[in-house]
Amino acid sequence: MIRGYEIVIAGTEPITADVIAQCPDLKAICRVGIGLDSVDLLEAQRRGIALSFTPDGPSPAVAELTVGLIVDLLRQVTATDRNLRNGSWARYHGRRISESTIGVIGVGRIGGMLINHLVNGFPNVRILANDLPERTGRVAHEAITWVDKETIYRESDVITLHVPLTASTQNLITRSELAMMKPTSHIINTARGGIVNEQDLAAILRDGSIGGAAIDVFEEEPYAGPLCEVMNTVLTCHMGSMTQDCRASMEIEATREAIRFMKGEPFVSPVPESEYELAAQMALL
Amino acid sequence: MIRGYEIVIAGTEPITADVIAQCPDLKAICRVGIGLDSVDLLEAQRRGIALSFTPDGPSPAVAELTVGLIVDLLRQVTATDRNLRNGSWARYHGRRISESTIGVIGVGRIGGMLINHLVNGFPNVRILANDLPERTGRVAHEAITWVDKETIYRESDVITLHVPLTASTQNLITRSELAMMKPTSHIINTARGGIVNEQDLAAILRDGSIGGAAIDVFEEEPYAGPLCEVMNTVLTCHMGSMTQDCRASMEIEATREAIRFMKGEPFVSPVPESEYELAAQMALL
Repeated sequence: MIRGYEIVIAGTEPITADVIAQCPDLKAICRVGIGLDSVDLLEAQRRGIALSFTPDGPSPAVAELTVGLIVDLLRQVTATDRNLRNGSWARYHGRRISESTIGVIGVGRIGGMLINHLVNGFPNVRILANDLPERTGRVAHEAITWVDKETIYRESDVITLHVPLTASTQNLITRSELAMMKPTSHIINTARGGIVNEQDLAAILRDGSIGGAAIDVFEEEPYAGPLCEVMNTVLTCHMGSMTQDCRASMEIEATREAIRFMKGEPFVSPVPESEYELAAQMALL
Repeated sequence: MIRGYEIVIAGTEPITADVIAQCPDLKAICRVGIGLDSVDLLEAQRRGIALSFTPDGPSPAVAELTVGLIVDLLRQVTATDRNLRNGSWARYHGRRISESTIGVIGVGRIGGMLINHLVNGFPNVRILANDLPERTGRVAHEAITWVDKETIYRESDVITLHVPLTASTQNLITRSELAMMKPTSHIINTARGGIVNEQDLAAILRDGSIGGAAIDVFEEEPYAGPLCEVMNTVLTCHMGSMTQDCRASMEIEATREAIRFMKGEPFVSPVPESEYELAAQMALL
């Protein structure tokens, strides 16, 4: 579809080396959003294709959705609605955020905003946090206890992931990590499909070995896989960024980047050199 | 079941004049919770039955659930989960709390806590508030804009109810109030069944004249009525107070009141005189 075009304003469609090879006219990719896992960065760099993104756009919407999913899991809202419509009045004894331990893996823009919602809105919440090695310590907050990932798996009532999908975060959460969780605990993925191994998650949820999960992102989207049959999950359609204000600002900003490129002006948000370096390191592994 | 007993630790079971008449030994009712709509206050008073309640117990749990329901409605979490399991990947463009107007009717303990969650956790949220005439002005907060109810109906993106069920709040929300709402707006009832007229709500939701509703409380519980067939609703099972910490503290406190009564000590939380006066006024109408 993009063959013959010089600039593409891109969602999360895969722009692989193969796609790039078929688009010899392509000069710029303006991503609507923050994730770069859909673009072959090294191939784009090799071909001299300029790349912008909108790193701030989706964060507020993803952070708010995550707060909602935490309450949903702790109080079993979606599951109760489903049960009630199936004729079962089952009152669930849940927990409050304010008396829970929330484990946040990834404390960049989104993880940081989430923590602000939680600590300001729900006093006494306990936050355990862990971040990518290259970002550790970037965010300081007296409410955050920095711990290793294993402590997060073992102690959290809800674990929520806010890391990008890279070679080092792919399959970050597999059976062995899930097995460390408490039987009452929940896990949320509003980051990217592939960070949580879906087969392992479905298996451990079917066992009832953990309390539940809320999954907004999938290895293959649209999703129609086995989690659709697993009832102790809340499933949404990659809607983290899908609020009217955030989508509008992201789409307008990506379009402005395209216009800047056409005018020969620099991007306001070029993909930084560090992202290419990371991709190069990963390619070597 | 309570015939022959002197003290009853009571949930929301109706303790009507008729029930009281059949329990000549009854000397004290210790309510687990805050609502008094289930007890015939004037009959209890006439018969000299002492009455305690746990007004602070459920509030934190109800306020947190309401935050979750606001996000659920604004982002259509439960509806999206249902659609996805039915094979439909439908990404919904929602709204953020921080750019929404939340209308709070009833700013007592629960409404006040809810407002604290919202204004502290989600900066820039706009709060419109209205309270019972006898409570107006009790809570002051710079983030609250006090308005009449009609302004709340017309301007809110989400309306949430936190008033007790009394003769003056029964059927507070009927077709004519719902008709004032914007077609995208939502309404939440975590207070008591009967405050929103269920038939009118089901009808207007079926029309699509408003965006949706989250209903935790019903005129008759367990609920199995027509809202179960209305898909733009989130339905839960009177679970506002159902967190482990709040239920435990409420049940322990009601039991302590019963023990105090047995020992001839005064209640810590007797139902205040103002509640009897209100009931007497209502009986005259």
